[in-house]
Amino acid sequence: MARPVVRLRPKAEARAIRHGFPWVYADELVTDRRTQALHLGTLAVLEDAERRPLGLVTVNVQSKIIARMLDRDPEAVIDADWCAARLSRALSLRERLFDAPFYRLVHAEADGLPGVIIDRFGDVAVIQPNAAWAEAYLPALAEALRRVTGIATVIKNGTGRARGLEGLAEETEVLSGGVDGPIPVPMNGATYMADVLGGQKTGLFFDQRPNHAFAARLARGARVLDVFTHVGGFALAALAGGAEQALAVDASATALDLARKGAEATGVADRFTTRAGDAFAVLEDLGREGARFDLVICDPPAFAPAKPALEAGLRAYERIARLAAPLVAPGGYLVLCSCSHAADLTAFRNASARGIGRGGRRGQIIHTGFAGPDHPLLPQLAESGYLKSLFFRLDG
Amino acid sequence: MARPVVRLRPKAEARAIRHGFPWVYADELVTDRRTQALHLGTLAVLEDAERRPLGLVTVNVQSKIIARMLDRDPEAVIDADWCAARLSRALSLRERLFDAPFYRLVHAEADGLPGVIIDRFGDVAVIQPNAAWAEAYLPALAEALRRVTGIATVIKNGTGRARGLEGLAEETEVLSGGVDGPIPVPMNGATYMADVLGGQKTGLFFDQRPNHAFAARLARGARVLDVFTHVGGFALAALAGGAEQALAVDASATALDLARKGAEATGVADRFTTRAGDAFAVLEDLGREGARFDLVICDPPAFAPAKPALEAGLRAYERIARLAAPLVAPGGYLVLCSCSHAADLTAFRNASARGIGRGGRRGQIIHTGFAGPDHPLLPQLAESGYLKSLFFRLDG
Repeated sequence: MARPVVRLRPKAEARAIRHGFPWVYADELVTDRRTQALHLGTLAVLEDAERRPLGLVTVNVQSKIIARMLDRDPEAVIDADWCAARLSRALSLRERLFDAPFYRLVHAEADGLPGVIIDRFGDVAVIQPNAAWAEAYLPALAEALRRVTGIATVIKNGTGRARGLEGLAEETEVLSGGVDGPIPVPMNGATYMADVLGGQKTGLFFDQRPNHAFAARLARGARVLDVFTHVGGFALAALAGGAEQALAVDASATALDLARKGAEATGVADRFTTRAGDAFAVLEDLGREGARFDLVICDPPAFAPAKPALEAGLRAYERIARLAAPLVAPGGYLVLCSCSHAADLTAFRNASARGIGRGGRRGQIIHTGFAGPDHPLLPQLAESGYLKSLFFRLDG
Repeated sequence: MARPVVRLRPKAEARAIRHGFPWVYADELVTDRRTQALHLGTLAVLEDAERRPLGLVTVNVQSKIIARMLDRDPEAVIDADWCAARLSRALSLRERLFDAPFYRLVHAEADGLPGVIIDRFGDVAVIQPNAAWAEAYLPALAEALRRVTGIATVIKNGTGRARGLEGLAEETEVLSGGVDGPIPVPMNGATYMADVLGGQKTGLFFDQRPNHAFAARLARGARVLDVFTHVGGFALAALAGGAEQALAVDASATALDLARKGAEATGVADRFTTRAGDAFAVLEDLGREGARFDLVICDPPAFAPAKPALEAGLRAYERIARLAAPLVAPGGYLVLCSCSHAADLTAFRNASARGIGRGGRRGQIIHTGFAGPDHPLLPQLAESGYLKSLFFRLDG
């Protein structure tokens, strides 16, 4: 059966797509009745306005990104072998980079699997199929994953905003194998406990690994405050790096419980304390208490996930900086993070610097970190690199 | 004797200066005859338009940056004690970050010493006094440096573009102690040979240290090409990281000689070869020869040091990428660096991606690195962070 064909409008930028841009926006495609009728996730051949084939795409006529490139070969067969080839390529990068099999194995478009996130925890993998094509091809993807990696347990995590945009249901299920409690994950000398079935996202955020490592370099002998710690992110790395003590703050009692288990597994429980509560309120309380730390980290959820939230988001980042800066001892360090797509590096840095100033401090930036290399980006989408971590040293 | 006073114009941005911006531009200052007559490097009290003091500045009426903030206290006494306080603060950051005393100790404005660069090579320090005030206070600075660090040998390196703009002469001299040949510098498991008297800048570029380290993680078993190697920058780190072989290219026979000495000191001379010549010509030759490498690094001098050179500079970066990409084996890595102030991250990334595309390849970005943390930045000047290193993985 011949594949359906979708076609770019005459003025659409075929050149960008030829050079590797992986998306077609709705206003670039001829959306006649035939295209409108395509089922969510249908595979189709994309042609330019002169009817020259550009590749094989998956179509979602409901979405602003109406087509995503799957393969430059319009006749590619999407099956377990195809998935295995993409996974092998992704795996070889991670095996070069990491000593132990704990990493983001697939980071969507940049790894050639649009909308697919796969995190690996030893012999357990968590797949987020955040695009309709991936939901349809999930059995092939899971089979390929077991074949390429030897992983036994594969979990489908169907939570997250992106699936809603694709019209996919929220559901988490074990596709093969089984999991018995939280999984210990070694990173930067610490051990984290990842709840891959009930946790946020896939159970652990691998993206901050290099920034945890940089913070750990600053932590020797330090009193550390880790706000929005989740399962102990910066705090456990800092303690493993020789911090004298760490106070970890999070709104989620469940996350803090995992953080404490991680502290025990790391062997630093005697230097680790937690405080459950709203981060802004806790920062204000600590300010009133006159608390001082040598290293303060604030790694909040995305305050500006998309453009409409940008202004309010930047105000929230500024407020975090304003409340955190006074808690930093003279000559100490303040780490401010943003995982907001909409707030670019310059906007986030300016909001942070403004907040530090309003908190009565000045500082220098000693390091700017992004997500780790198991979170690759296509150059054409690199502007949207979401994670930014700014390391400030504050004045004496 | 009362200090001269300089005053901001009514519309000048005193707020930015109050919040830590360290410079006054010529069009922001009242430049009456009295101010015009101030000697290069004169210390003066800066006032806002309402005659409220903002701090102590050094004045250069010839420069677009007409005044630079030295101290927020307008009555600060600039002497060896003052210099020692700034140096102690800078030293404590580096001692926290590095195990061995080889680093940039002072990075100008961000370390509170406008226009002053100090690189440390064990018990040798090289000072670049690139501002007139620093030239005048060099004896105090050198005395403070010896006192704070215990360093015996202090060298003044008076080369470089910045001094010309300040009307300072080119001259390099040993201020105290002595140096006997190149200094071995341990970095990332390799040993580099720094010629602190005759070399480029202060003899070695410390800024690429974290990017050398990242490249070394990709280098295990790899065939490496390091173009613009200087004294072996990326090549020696890659060999120390387990590269099978490295070819280092530079136009300077002197630099390559130091690189070979470094390879011997690192114990990797049997895997290290060099080729002297113009980088563009060598890249073209290697292309004709059909040479392939698993890791290619291009770390050229600034092609776009200032705005007028931006367009030509970006074309040169694109050309480098276009010539280098075909030399990368399938699934291999390409590292492209820019130390151009004028080319920001986005412009440089776009030029690089365009060049890779024109070289017939596609790739993902796995890492974006900047200068190391011994090169801090003021948040207000961070936009100008000059060094960018992009790590691409190219397609199979």
